[in-house]
Amino acid sequence: MTGAPVRRRGRPRREEAADTRDLILTAARKEFSEHGYEKTSVRGIAKAAGVDSALVHHYFGTKEQVFEAAIEVIFAPALNASKAVADAPPDDVGERLTRFFLGIWENPATRTPLLAIVRSALTNDTAAAVFRRLIASQLLRRIAGRIDLPDAELRAELAAAQLVGCAILRYVIKLEPLASADTEQVVARLAPVVHGHLTGA
Amino acid sequence: MTGAPVRRRGRPRREEAADTRDLILTAARKEFSEHGYEKTSVRGIAKAAGVDSALVHHYFGTKEQVFEAAIEVIFAPALNASKAVADAPPDDVGERLTRFFLGIWENPATRTPLLAIVRSALTNDTAAAVFRRLIASQLLRRIAGRIDLPDAELRAELAAAQLVGCAILRYVIKLEPLASADTEQVVARLAPVVHGHLTGA
Repeated sequence: MTGAPVRRRGRPRREEAADTRDLILTAARKEFSEHGYEKTSVRGIAKAAGVDSALVHHYFGTKEQVFEAAIEVIFAPALNASKAVADAPPDDVGERLTRFFLGIWENPATRTPLLAIVRSALTNDTAAAVFRRLIASQLLRRIAGRIDLPDAELRAELAAAQLVGCAILRYVIKLEPLASADTEQVVARLAPVVHGHLTGA
Repeated sequence: MTGAPVRRRGRPRREEAADTRDLILTAARKEFSEHGYEKTSVRGIAKAAGVDSALVHHYFGTKEQVFEAAIEVIFAPALNASKAVADAPPDDVGERLTRFFLGIWENPATRTPLLAIVRSALTNDTAAAVFRRLIASQLLRRIAGRIDLPDAELRAELAAAQLVGCAILRYVIKLEPLASADTEQVVARLAPVVHGHLTGA
């Protein structure tokens, strides 16, 4: 374990390593959320975590790899909930996914990091590749796996397109009247569209 | 006309001013398209146009105002075509708008400046405000004006959300299989959705 943190007396090494890793990951989430991919550096993450840059590299590798780990943590609730959506009764799939997706954006605690990730993915090719890898392979494929139709993956992506576009116009660009529309009104309009993409109904 | 360009012999003043204005606007489009809103400066635009910064301020005002003028030029074809879409027979509205929108993104000459504007709007609040003002007031309201249903503006925005989300996942994030899908296949899936938002059918 070259480069591992110096072991202090009285603490088992493995537990200490896990603590350090968590500390770095928390700092990374915060730095990427506040400054986006381009303006965040491994040195800045190390400083925020109170550790040496070498430790960040030791546990995670490159900046791209730290970003990927941070995104995985930020999207963990989304991935869990996407499982719940995928397990929903077929008739409820569109509405559940729509409600779940808007719920993440309505909550400022989840909106802020998500927005930073989305902005990073839209302005930086490396961040886009990480986003693509994680979202495509974990979130959309899981939903597509439940679609028993040709072009299941394309369908899942077009459903996602309706939701992502709504999030961008409503929460980022803040177009009116969409930005101030009642969530239930938006759900009522979008759920059938998402449902149609996913089920062909 | 304080700060106006020095008049040279043998050219009418008004024509010369129009030339200078065009020169600055062309440079501004190029600078904003290449560097985005944040990294473009009035000084950079002036330099690219071969004029003094004071002249840029004289003709356009602040950086925000130059940006607005540049966006208006970039979106001019979109605004003209949106008129054609709005004038389409009611049954064709969804498909015409979808084809027109994807057409702009399929063409690299129009995609590049559009992408720069969209990226700027997503990462900078001033750019978002300009984008909102122009798109909302000119493009979407024109389409909404043709919708004879309650919530016409909300409907136009949700139709736009489906298209914008598709552009982002297909052309910016490049999610597969959407990024490589045949345009006709995408049109076939999106046109009914856009049509449904706009017409309630």
